[in-house]
Amino acid sequence: MTIRAYAADAPRVPLRPFEFDPGPLPDEWVEVAVEHCGVCHSDLSMIDGEWGQTTYPIVAGHEVVGRVVAVAPGAKRVAVGERVGVGWYASSCTECRTCLAGSQHLCRDSTGLITHHRGGFAERVRAHWLWTTPLPEGLDPSTAGPLFCGGITVFGPIARFGVKPTDRVGVVGIGGLGHLAVRFLRAWGCEVTAFTSTASKRAEALGLGAHEVVASSDPAALKPLAGRFDFVLVTANVPLPWHEYLAALAPRGRLHVVGAVLEPIPVPAFALIGGERNVSGSPLGSPATIADMLDFCARHRIAPTVERFPFRRINDALDHLRAGRARWRVVLDADWDAA
Amino acid sequence: MTIRAYAADAPRVPLRPFEFDPGPLPDEWVEVAVEHCGVCHSDLSMIDGEWGQTTYPIVAGHEVVGRVVAVAPGAKRVAVGERVGVGWYASSCTECRTCLAGSQHLCRDSTGLITHHRGGFAERVRAHWLWTTPLPEGLDPSTAGPLFCGGITVFGPIARFGVKPTDRVGVVGIGGLGHLAVRFLRAWGCEVTAFTSTASKRAEALGLGAHEVVASSDPAALKPLAGRFDFVLVTANVPLPWHEYLAALAPRGRLHVVGAVLEPIPVPAFALIGGERNVSGSPLGSPATIADMLDFCARHRIAPTVERFPFRRINDALDHLRAGRARWRVVLDADWDAA
Repeated sequence: MTIRAYAADAPRVPLRPFEFDPGPLPDEWVEVAVEHCGVCHSDLSMIDGEWGQTTYPIVAGHEVVGRVVAVAPGAKRVAVGERVGVGWYASSCTECRTCLAGSQHLCRDSTGLITHHRGGFAERVRAHWLWTTPLPEGLDPSTAGPLFCGGITVFGPIARFGVKPTDRVGVVGIGGLGHLAVRFLRAWGCEVTAFTSTASKRAEALGLGAHEVVASSDPAALKPLAGRFDFVLVTANVPLPWHEYLAALAPRGRLHVVGAVLEPIPVPAFALIGGERNVSGSPLGSPATIADMLDFCARHRIAPTVERFPFRRINDALDHLRAGRARWRVVLDADWDAA
Repeated sequence: MTIRAYAADAPRVPLRPFEFDPGPLPDEWVEVAVEHCGVCHSDLSMIDGEWGQTTYPIVAGHEVVGRVVAVAPGAKRVAVGERVGVGWYASSCTECRTCLAGSQHLCRDSTGLITHHRGGFAERVRAHWLWTTPLPEGLDPSTAGPLFCGGITVFGPIARFGVKPTDRVGVVGIGGLGHLAVRFLRAWGCEVTAFTSTASKRAEALGLGAHEVVASSDPAALKPLAGRFDFVLVTANVPLPWHEYLAALAPRGRLHVVGAVLEPIPVPAFALIGGERNVSGSPLGSPATIADMLDFCARHRIAPTVERFPFRRINDALDHLRAGRARWRVVLDADWDAA
């Protein structure tokens, strides 16, 4: 049975309706009827061929919430009819040491939903059961999609790099990722400072839970913060006054990047040695961490702030994101049978 | 009572005999009669004024082993007659959060033995009791001195950054620091690869316990090692093919620097993000880690490999180190009453 979808045939052209035959469902895989799908900057990057690994036509979309409609032999944990989420990954090998150690998101043989398969800008989407996570009670399915990429990208390092509720933390960049990071860290119990280069985001950052807001790219504003932060999470993907950010770390502090800044970060050895400091990065998170995040969100009533579009307006949604106007995440709602 | 010592009056001139009155012993401090004192590159840097914080005449030396000859009121743990070691630090504030948390070596109000006081190129030396560590049974006092700076510099991160006996580790630079790092990591249970740019050190590195030796500055030799190492300890202080070293890290791997490379290390965000990798640095170690190191050395019969000179030949010893001929550490033996 074919799947209706929206695909791009080339970089920077509007998506068009597209149908494809997905073939038989592989063992251990799950098929999900898409109810909602977030739109992420990575979708734009893949659609536009920026990473040099796009095969056209491409069906993007990797922040899916929907209902399980089929489970292949060997699939576990989920049942037909259950509501689940699917994010960046479609599969991991399940047998390498990295997978066995619970870091399946670092598996070298993982596949991405939109880099190796057809994504969630479609009626139905498929992934290995390990990457098909049940939604806990209390999470609104219509806004949960962005947790599966944007959310786990910032929750992952908070959970895995030893951030403590007693820590003083910073979030650099208030946007699709940063607005969730501020909420997570506030609920985590930390003293939270938001860094933004946009004065108009100041009040919004406070509303999200930041205790303080500081200009992110102003060295003079950063200087008085020297030695203060245990953890600074960089969600921006632009060069920053790195010297001042490193100096703003407390002893044993960590500067952690999830924004793919293209220019290498210049890290002087002495900036690390004196205070026993760390610079690190991470991609998304493991299945166990995703499940922890969903429980944490349900318990703390954390949801992405989203703007919603019906699927038939997918090109408007993409343009909205491209223009940098999204506050803070864009979600598409299924309307296949409404047309 | 004055203390006899050797001091430098200016950069790069021979040391000369020098006497000074140390004044009353401060509360909580300990005075130690120097039996042996290692010579470290940091002594040369301070003598030569390279760090811009040298006050002449300077009495360098900060790898001391000797006998306690006086304890001031409030001093703990050590008694007159006991054999102890003193290293880079003379004191820490003891009351800031960093000190209270057991990271006294990161205290902002710490003082260095040779940066703030008179060092161990002398009959007697003084430090706060916290930085005056009893030598356990089974450690040879005549070779233990270098553990208190060179040793703890590499043992500190092994102990504090989560290196596991199951890890595959690398040591970059086989010298005063690196030769100890190889021994520590071999005894720690790891698979140890030594990186050196000097072909003649190959056999020596294997003799120290390395399982394998690789050319440290040859990108072609590093490429096949991509994704291999959980922990790479950089003891060299020269620029390296950083891109290849980052690529050589396993998922969740760590590149840790203790050599003060002057040029910033260019760290691409994507090199960290993909594999959830870390870049970090550290200075020496805390009093608790120093005590752990000494016990570990006694249990595993690890001692620095040293060349020994009597104090009266101190200038020969410094020249030997300056010329890069030391294999691997230089130690001075007290001979004050032998002349």
